[in-house]
Amino acid sequence: MSAPVMPEPASPVPDLPSPTLPSPARPGTEAGAALLARLRERLSPRHVLTEDGDVAPHLAEARGLYRGRALAVLRPADTAEVAFAVGACAEAGVPVVAQGGNTGLVGGGVPHGGVVLSLARLSRIRAVDPVGATLTVEAGAVLADVQAAAEAAGLLFPLSLAAEGSCRIGGNLATNAGGTAVLAYGNARDLVLGLEVVLADGRVWNGLKALRKNNAGYDLKHLFVGSEGTLGIITAAVLKLFPRPASRAVGFVGLASPRAALDLFERLRRAAGQGLTAFEVMPRFGLEIVLAHVPGTQRPLAGRHDTYALVEFASPRPGADMAAELESALGEALEAGLAEDATIGASEAQNAALWRLRETLPEAQSREGGSIKHDVSVPLARLPEFLERAAAACRAEMPGLRPCPFGHFGDGNIHFNLSQPPGMDKAAFLASWARFNRIVHDVVHELDGSIAAEHGVGLIKRDELQHYGDPVGLDLMRRLKAALDPHDILNPGKVVALSADPPSALP
Amino acid sequence: MSAPVMPEPASPVPDLPSPTLPSPARPGTEAGAALLARLRERLSPRHVLTEDGDVAPHLAEARGLYRGRALAVLRPADTAEVAFAVGACAEAGVPVVAQGGNTGLVGGGVPHGGVVLSLARLSRIRAVDPVGATLTVEAGAVLADVQAAAEAAGLLFPLSLAAEGSCRIGGNLATNAGGTAVLAYGNARDLVLGLEVVLADGRVWNGLKALRKNNAGYDLKHLFVGSEGTLGIITAAVLKLFPRPASRAVGFVGLASPRAALDLFERLRRAAGQGLTAFEVMPRFGLEIVLAHVPGTQRPLAGRHDTYALVEFASPRPGADMAAELESALGEALEAGLAEDATIGASEAQNAALWRLRETLPEAQSREGGSIKHDVSVPLARLPEFLERAAAACRAEMPGLRPCPFGHFGDGNIHFNLSQPPGMDKAAFLASWARFNRIVHDVVHELDGSIAAEHGVGLIKRDELQHYGDPVGLDLMRRLKAALDPHDILNPGKVVALSADPPSALP
Repeated sequence: MSAPVMPEPASPVPDLPSPTLPSPARPGTEAGAALLARLRERLSPRHVLTEDGDVAPHLAEARGLYRGRALAVLRPADTAEVAFAVGACAEAGVPVVAQGGNTGLVGGGVPHGGVVLSLARLSRIRAVDPVGATLTVEAGAVLADVQAAAEAAGLLFPLSLAAEGSCRIGGNLATNAGGTAVLAYGNARDLVLGLEVVLADGRVWNGLKALRKNNAGYDLKHLFVGSEGTLGIITAAVLKLFPRPASRAVGFVGLASPRAALDLFERLRRAAGQGLTAFEVMPRFGLEIVLAHVPGTQRPLAGRHDTYALVEFASPRPGADMAAELESALGEALEAGLAEDATIGASEAQNAALWRLRETLPEAQSREGGSIKHDVSVPLARLPEFLERAAAACRAEMPGLRPCPFGHFGDGNIHFNLSQPPGMDKAAFLASWARFNRIVHDVVHELDGSIAAEHGVGLIKRDELQHYGDPVGLDLMRRLKAALDPHDILNPGKVVALSADPPSALP
Repeated sequence: MSAPVMPEPASPVPDLPSPTLPSPARPGTEAGAALLARLRERLSPRHVLTEDGDVAPHLAEARGLYRGRALAVLRPADTAEVAFAVGACAEAGVPVVAQGGNTGLVGGGVPHGGVVLSLARLSRIRAVDPVGATLTVEAGAVLADVQAAAEAAGLLFPLSLAAEGSCRIGGNLATNAGGTAVLAYGNARDLVLGLEVVLADGRVWNGLKALRKNNAGYDLKHLFVGSEGTLGIITAAVLKLFPRPASRAVGFVGLASPRAALDLFERLRRAAGQGLTAFEVMPRFGLEIVLAHVPGTQRPLAGRHDTYALVEFASPRPGADMAAELESALGEALEAGLAEDATIGASEAQNAALWRLRETLPEAQSREGGSIKHDVSVPLARLPEFLERAAAACRAEMPGLRPCPFGHFGDGNIHFNLSQPPGMDKAAFLASWARFNRIVHDVVHELDGSIAAEHGVGLIKRDELQHYGDPVGLDLMRRLKAALDPHDILNPGKVVALSADPPSALP
């Protein structure tokens, strides 16, 4: 048997930062063939994909920023097969890149040699415990299916994000996904009680505990959550469930500035506490392009405003009337001159229509030409300053540029996206990606924020992390990587490179 | 200068499990004197305590289960002095045991050679940010002072536990403290956004981020939280604050059984969601000894009941009437036959009196002779089975034994304490500590629970952890310890010993 023809590595889009990747051990013909034979024997030949057509979907992300190469795509059926596959690859010195729904945005799941290990077939809901309010699920379950299983038990799994129809829970946990429910329920890591993880040497750590309190040694689960498949491969998890909202209300508010948005946020948080379940913000430009490009959307407020906030109140109390509470809170904000105008959905259909204005913004932005994106966070109190300084610096760099910062304002998390000047050549605009990264990330860094808020580091921000990260913290990360994956088998070159000072392609 | 006379190590109370401790490098006269001279020069002589009377309070815990020894007690003034002290000790090969308020219950802060590093002088509140709802504090601040600083800003820091008047926030974080507010707000680790940590080699990791979303690499803070001073010494933290409750109500409920308590918990959680802020349970025996021994306590309900629940509803919503909501929920539970009797505090004084019945239980128990204690958790749905099986097994082992399981029922966390048979010799009873540990922990283990729920592992449960822990998980813990503290400088021998298989003194 001869080794399969491997697709040549394609360069990342040239206008992106191009971190240097290690050259993973490429098994020679015989070694590679022997490994594949072992894997075929255990996983069955039809779950060891080597045909170009089968492998290709696993070599790139939806945004197409990176294209990788892989010896094969493995589709194990269960944890034991994952453990076998990782163990066999480790023995052969072949890297393993875990993939869930492959919906990531930072190049973290793109292989650069070695094998892709797809968790898609580990998709069972293993158990739902309505008393303990927990759900035990395999890593390959689609997020929407996890939400549905919770709902069937009369409970809520709150994690919610744009890709929920195709992303898989293992990937959500491996990247510590954020989304629109973080304000009330926290990030993905806050929704996890226990994990089952296959380690770099093929052993299985069974940490599938369904406990609310557990101080029996170091907290290992938090180490794997958010490690992007570089420290272990999550195969199953125990998740926290919550009471379902009995009442929810959605409002859309016109505001004079991001500063006014911050004041409104503070007021609503004091009024509703945990009942404030979303506070999303978009600029005037964002709403206008949604109305221009997304069919079926309607202007929610008669006038135009500098900044818009989408706010949601929800409560699981059976008698709660969140619409009345939101109306009262927004009424007071209008009276106080804090909000310029506001509307509240009068039905679930209207609530959904208001949410759609926010959710379709990325789609609308893609219709406005090239977009350079940043997923950043700063301390809440510094958000207005960040928005002002970053937008001013970007506009100064390129007149005509249209900043479109939007997102999870209440979490201090902004998708600081830049739409190209109208009429400019898209490729020419995207060629300035690294330059705008530096401008925006410098402001984030000065304000003590994070250059990787919810999408992770992957490949696209690995060298940025190296540039801005605390050297002691980076050293700790490398020590952890070396302790748990000394031979660099798991997703090598992502997040933090094992070599002390990898060369950076950044200016 | 001659080395100070060191107190000889006293054995742990003989009826306790006696894990084998490593023999830390005891500096010879010259080396020890040189280290102390270095430390005195930097910290000033009056903050390097070597007199027996000064050192003694740092050698034992309040319960007196262990008594250690130390070369000196260091009282650094700030992070730089902590870093210097740890670096100097590391160079000399001298272990460092960090202490906050020394209120631990598991032997974690008791030194067995080396120096004690007291964080007490690092007690500043560095900043309060009411907009971001964060508080930056040094490790030595007393928990009650942190609560007060939050209150002064109109906000809540929810961590609350019996020792809050003397325990210090660094210790709370190092042990991932639990307490009475976990149900609504989570454990100590869930209240942390950022940390500053002095590492085993004296370097400082500055992870003092005040961000709600941050995926810039591995989550280092969760590694240090709960590591009991074995991986690093926390010197400062950014904490999350919350809206203050505008309304609270406290109820005391008589129930037929732990099963009924579980049913009531489910009902109240569905009724109130996050508004259910406490669900504590105690047995009939527990209430009776409180009423018998604690001055000023009054019987809350006319009849006697198998099980009692203390429940609290609270809400930050300005218009909330939690008393009305709790009355309605408990009224329905009574009608459904789920509760036998219930009362609700009509004033804050009455609420406090009801809480006192629960809070003074440990004190009342100490008046009933010897008590063998277990701090365990199981999945919520298995709590009634656990309580039944563990009590039956213990009663079968020693007729006349009086189980007194109480605590944070809503978290699945029970302090499964055993009061000695009346009239039995206390020392004879305590001699069976390890035997009852094995009985109770076996049941916990079979039910997939944790033998160390909120108090930590320290020394008292180190060998129990070794006995019950997943071998792969234990190996991971040792790898982390070796990666972050390769020379075993920080609190050696606690939580997890670096040698692969330390001999156990357990039967």
